[in-house]
Amino acid sequence: MQAAVLYSAKDLRVEQRQEPSAGAKQVKVKVEWAGICGSDLHAYLHGLALEAHPLGGQQPPFALGHEFSGTIVEVGDGVTKYAAGDRVAIEPLLYCGDCYACSRGDYNQCMKVGFVGLHRDGGFAEYVVVDEYMLHRLPDEVSFEEGALIEPAAVSFYAVRESKLKAGDSVAIFGAGPIGLLTLLAAKAAGAMKLIVVDLSDERLQKAKELGATAVINGNEENIAGKIIALSNGGVNVAYECAGAQATMTNAVASLRQGGQVMTLAVFMKPVSIDMGQIMFKAADVTATLAYRHVFPEVIGMVAAGRLDVKSVITKKIGLNQIVEEGFEQLIQDVKQAKILVRPSQD
Amino acid sequence: MQAAVLYSAKDLRVEQRQEPSAGAKQVKVKVEWAGICGSDLHAYLHGLALEAHPLGGQQPPFALGHEFSGTIVEVGDGVTKYAAGDRVAIEPLLYCGDCYACSRGDYNQCMKVGFVGLHRDGGFAEYVVVDEYMLHRLPDEVSFEEGALIEPAAVSFYAVRESKLKAGDSVAIFGAGPIGLLTLLAAKAAGAMKLIVVDLSDERLQKAKELGATAVINGNEENIAGKIIALSNGGVNVAYECAGAQATMTNAVASLRQGGQVMTLAVFMKPVSIDMGQIMFKAADVTATLAYRHVFPEVIGMVAAGRLDVKSVITKKIGLNQIVEEGFEQLIQDVKQAKILVRPSQD
Ligand SMILES: [Zn+2]
Ligand SMILES: [Zn+2]
Ligand SMILES: [Zn+2]
Ligand SMILES: [Zn+2]
Repeated sequence: MQAAVLYSAKDLRVEQRQEPSAGAKQVKVKVEWAGICGSDLHAYLHGLALEAHPLGGQQPPFALGHEFSGTIVEVGDGVTKYAAGDRVAIEPLLYCGDCYACSRGDYNQCMKVGFVGLHRDGGFAEYVVVDEYMLHRLPDEVSFEEGALIEPAAVSFYAVRESKLKAGDSVAIFGAGPIGLLTLLAAKAAGAMKLIVVDLSDERLQKAKELGATAVINGNEENIAGKIIALSNGGVNVAYECAGAQATMTNAVASLRQGGQVMTLAVFMKPVSIDMGQIMFKAADVTATLAYRHVFPEVIGMVAAGRLDVKSVITKKIGLNQIVEEGFEQLIQDVKQAKILVRPSQD
Repeated sequence: MQAAVLYSAKDLRVEQRQEPSAGAKQVKVKVEWAGICGSDLHAYLHGLALEAHPLGGQQPPFALGHEFSGTIVEVGDGVTKYAAGDRVAIEPLLYCGDCYACSRGDYNQCMKVGFVGLHRDGGFAEYVVVDEYMLHRLPDEVSFEEGALIEPAAVSFYAVRESKLKAGDSVAIFGAGPIGLLTLLAAKAAGAMKLIVVDLSDERLQKAKELGATAVINGNEENIAGKIIALSNGGVNVAYECAGAQATMTNAVASLRQGGQVMTLAVFMKPVSIDMGQIMFKAADVTATLAYRHVFPEVIGMVAAGRLDVKSVITKKIGLNQIVEEGFEQLIQDVKQAKILVRPSQD
């Protein structure tokens, strides 16, 4: 079969690999569509960790891809709930099952958390083997393209659920990349009334408008927080930080109203400076979520019901052979790109 | 009457002032005991704002002191719930009553919040006039010395109530000054099991032990977070930041367990750097409280019931004439001092 395998930084090869077969409590999935994520991009630019992840991880090289849908083609011993032919989305988390967080069901906070596609072979391949516990059935109303978006949508949906947002609230979203756009959709689905999106690119902001932003602000403008405070009549209840930069965090804190919250979804590559005086005066809080837990069924249900239009973030669909030039390199160069989906299958 | 009046930085004068008289809905209080607070010290070292606070504030010079108990000696027109002779503690907040926060009852988050004793004449005087809404009756079981500690105890008690602390949890307290010690008492009263206190002074840590700390760590030691994680079997549920420094905030974040919280009580004089990667991995949050709201009756009740031994933080009692040398200067020089109480009355 063909797979897109990362050897080291900038060395992603589409090559012939042996088809995997399902072990006990595993299934073999024919990948239908797989999305390229910011963390794939990070791995592409900086390479992967050289040690194998402790929870059944592999040493590189292996196939990337953790946002994917597929059809089950083979089930291993002990698989009871799924059968060949089932349409599924994959929740790709690896976790130990018995640390402090896992024993409370908070498996995304596992001390050893890992991901299919970042720590072992993932979905940028014709076939992939995953564990039965990772599977979520897709109803007929949810297409395979949408199925590939359940994972990133779950990131945003979970962050919105964990945030202080209540119906009728005002929110600001910093960053209109895929996660920012999906957070916009999730916050709207959760009842946010004013949805203000900030980004450096007018093209991304145009997309945000199409997806339901009630106001957009270019990050190069002056006094962004002042504008958000004016638009939200005193500041937003929640600012979603989907950019991961000092300037956006500073503006996020400054645009909160009393009792507001900065919910961080972005990965910050270095420590960020925060004015605790503002946090204190506003009794605000700064928090973050990592991945998701226990929300795939809800996200799939919301997509099926037409209440979370995840396919609107797709900007391009390509074949596996195009993944480097038309996928990864395109995402680096073309700020208009939000979610690019890859179809590994040759049929 | 005599009052300790702040003219400008380091210019605090004990001088003769006209006795005030109670206006409508006000009472005149004979001050029994008044505590010196860190914010008094800040005003003493750096001076007060020169503009009068918008909510009936005065321009300096005026008498400092916002932590005090007293006896009502005169009531103004329209005072209905209090009479001369009543023993009271004073909740010294000034607030507008109709901003976003005030209209929700969150008066400590008022956009214009101010304080008797920091924005108009306070309790370092034989007599002070306060508004009826600021009064809280002291039962006979609560001494006037304890009455002067209700205000700082309310700061800690409120922060503990607003924090994620649940009975049986482990906490770390960074800073063993008066607010750190009162937070220790409040966290213990709220059911915290492991109470780990960090400070640079062994003398303060000794005091913390006497007040119920289950472990103490000198801030000069290596690997403070590692020690806290070991002592708490994986990290604390809540770290109370009562020091306001970069090193203590960094250690506070590092000593949290999954789902933990940094609750900040200290005033940070400059922005603080926070590792959002740790916040994300732990799904932790960083928040803060300012002053208190709606908790004076509870604090007075807990003191009356012997469940909050606030008098244990008193290290010295002095007369008003001694306030500069034996009060403010002593607090600057002598790290052993926690709460110094001042008796303005000559009798
Ligand atoms: Zn991803
Ligand atoms: Zn675990
Ligand atoms: Zn104070
Ligand atoms: Zn107000």
